[in-house]
Amino acid sequence: MAEGSGNQPGKPGMTYRDAGVDIDAQDRALAMIKGHLAATRTPGVLSDLGSFGGLFRVPADVPDPVLVASTDGVGTKLMVAWKAGRHDTVGEDLVNHCVNDILVMGARPLFFLDYLATGRLEPAVAERLVAGVARGCRANGCALIGGETAEMPEMYGDGEYDLAGTIVGIVARGAILDGAAVRAGDLAYGLPSTGLHTNGYSLARRIVFGTLGLGPDDEIPGTGTGAADALLAVHKSYLPALDGALATGLVRALAHITGGGLTDNVPRVLPEGTALEVELGSWPVPPLFTALHRAGNVPDDDMLRTFNMGVGMVALVAPGDAKAFETELAGRGETAWPIGRVVPGDRRVVYRGTLR
Amino acid sequence: MAEGSGNQPGKPGMTYRDAGVDIDAQDRALAMIKGHLAATRTPGVLSDLGSFGGLFRVPADVPDPVLVASTDGVGTKLMVAWKAGRHDTVGEDLVNHCVNDILVMGARPLFFLDYLATGRLEPAVAERLVAGVARGCRANGCALIGGETAEMPEMYGDGEYDLAGTIVGIVARGAILDGAAVRAGDLAYGLPSTGLHTNGYSLARRIVFGTLGLGPDDEIPGTGTGAADALLAVHKSYLPALDGALATGLVRALAHITGGGLTDNVPRVLPEGTALEVELGSWPVPPLFTALHRAGNVPDDDMLRTFNMGVGMVALVAPGDAKAFETELAGRGETAWPIGRVVPGDRRVVYRGTLR
Repeated sequence: MAEGSGNQPGKPGMTYRDAGVDIDAQDRALAMIKGHLAATRTPGVLSDLGSFGGLFRVPADVPDPVLVASTDGVGTKLMVAWKAGRHDTVGEDLVNHCVNDILVMGARPLFFLDYLATGRLEPAVAERLVAGVARGCRANGCALIGGETAEMPEMYGDGEYDLAGTIVGIVARGAILDGAAVRAGDLAYGLPSTGLHTNGYSLARRIVFGTLGLGPDDEIPGTGTGAADALLAVHKSYLPALDGALATGLVRALAHITGGGLTDNVPRVLPEGTALEVELGSWPVPPLFTALHRAGNVPDDDMLRTFNMGVGMVALVAPGDAKAFETELAGRGETAWPIGRVVPGDRRVVYRGTLR
Repeated sequence: MAEGSGNQPGKPGMTYRDAGVDIDAQDRALAMIKGHLAATRTPGVLSDLGSFGGLFRVPADVPDPVLVASTDGVGTKLMVAWKAGRHDTVGEDLVNHCVNDILVMGARPLFFLDYLATGRLEPAVAERLVAGVARGCRANGCALIGGETAEMPEMYGDGEYDLAGTIVGIVARGAILDGAAVRAGDLAYGLPSTGLHTNGYSLARRIVFGTLGLGPDDEIPGTGTGAADALLAVHKSYLPALDGALATGLVRALAHITGGGLTDNVPRVLPEGTALEVELGSWPVPPLFTALHRAGNVPDDDMLRTFNMGVGMVALVAPGDAKAFETELAGRGETAWPIGRVVPGDRRVVYRGTLR
């Protein structure tokens, strides 16, 4: 450094580290996560970590290629991770959520970028979080090509963080799924969720930790599972279950059941003049949802508009393709329950029967 | 809704709204921002808001196309926005920061997605934030094709929010800038920043609001500018200044001067065996930086590793192209100061002279 400083001798100088930001700790965290990122590398990746931006070659094998992008966060499922001190799975939740969001448009993942915001960066926690993101990326054939780790003293408390991410995938223009192909008479299949996925946590936490007064290790009544285990179950990626059915054109539309439940998500792929009739009782609602339902005394319509109720993805299939669709999924060891049927209507979900 | 409810008569039921999440408020906010998003539409956009993912057609006019992606946040500049009650410019900061991050790889923007996390969603504030993002997108020819607005009671305080975003751009493989073309003897030009851009705010806020004890409307001594005006000045996008020079191959490398300052950012594009000699005093350091330097009694090397010191972008140019580069920028009404030269060395910035 040159002399001629702004320092006034005798007065203590103020530095960025004094202000709570430790660039060296950030560098250490970066070094620790480099290995995780490298493990997600796919042939399209051209850049190395440390570039200003991540580079990814557009695949040459997709005719009339269309990029499909989605941003999401983990939401207050993170607060369960804080409470349980488990930071290694929420990254996977994030990636799988995003993979599903572009899968429903017919796209396969290309790359991912994460955003991690913390109060004071704990390199070991950051490493666990990014390890989860990288594991999710690797399982979905998706390269982690960048991200931002922001240390923001005053904005986040000690031990608190937010985690969000963006996925970019690709689909041939002719293979885009947008619901336009859906017709009255199509069958609706529900694919099992693994738990709450990443939605409804504000309500679920209030019931589990508030109303029921449970700790992370206490069993949620009637479930045989501890609170943290149940609430941190990893959001399922439906790419392995559905990529074959998508490639062979067996699916007319997909709806990812996220915030808003079946009630709000299925209509996003219903064309004008159609509705979905869903038969309650046609699939087994997992005990976790029943426990939340009872303990929280939650109205049925709130349950169905808040939680996935055991169905994380809905596939709409032409009647003539139903058998082939079922066989295709069974061949992969995947389950698909027939839960209803497309009928004439006004872009709503119409429930028949009772929740239990 | 079907009957057979989980409701237990006589006990109050719990809903998602009770848990602090108001889906209807989210829908109202979404409706308010739809117009802003529509205004950013470019020919590549295929999707409408409400899709699970945003759709963008890969441009057909880029040979061997490579996608360039970057995620960033606004950082604690947001806390100045909260303090001043001004929410309409930080979105522009975010977009311009991201545009610059991919510009330095030679890429032009295609699309953007934002992530807005709040405690309790105030639709009017969300609208101002997204309006800023949309304005930034429009100015850079970049489509806003998606985003996530997350309402997370308990994770963020009332009136607090975080804002991050992801940009995806494109560059022909042969036109990627990665520093490999840089040679000893190249000239370094500094392009003026408009203020702190989005870096160094933890330190700057501490000096301005702590050490100096200023309110948002108080003048920062020696600057003639109020604290909020000075600290919220919008991060400049260098796309309009540099796209001509990039298209005609007048630039060998670019470095976006963000966190880490000139000291840490320029080496990212210096090849092995080179260093950058920077002549302090060769450009006018804006009064804001001098005020922070003095009031915070910040060591010189911390100033240069924390703040951009008035230089928001560095362009490295072959000596034979210097005249053409200067003429190209002058023709656009843009300034570029000659601030140094590439020399043999070990990938560092070597400062000559004094800061003032």
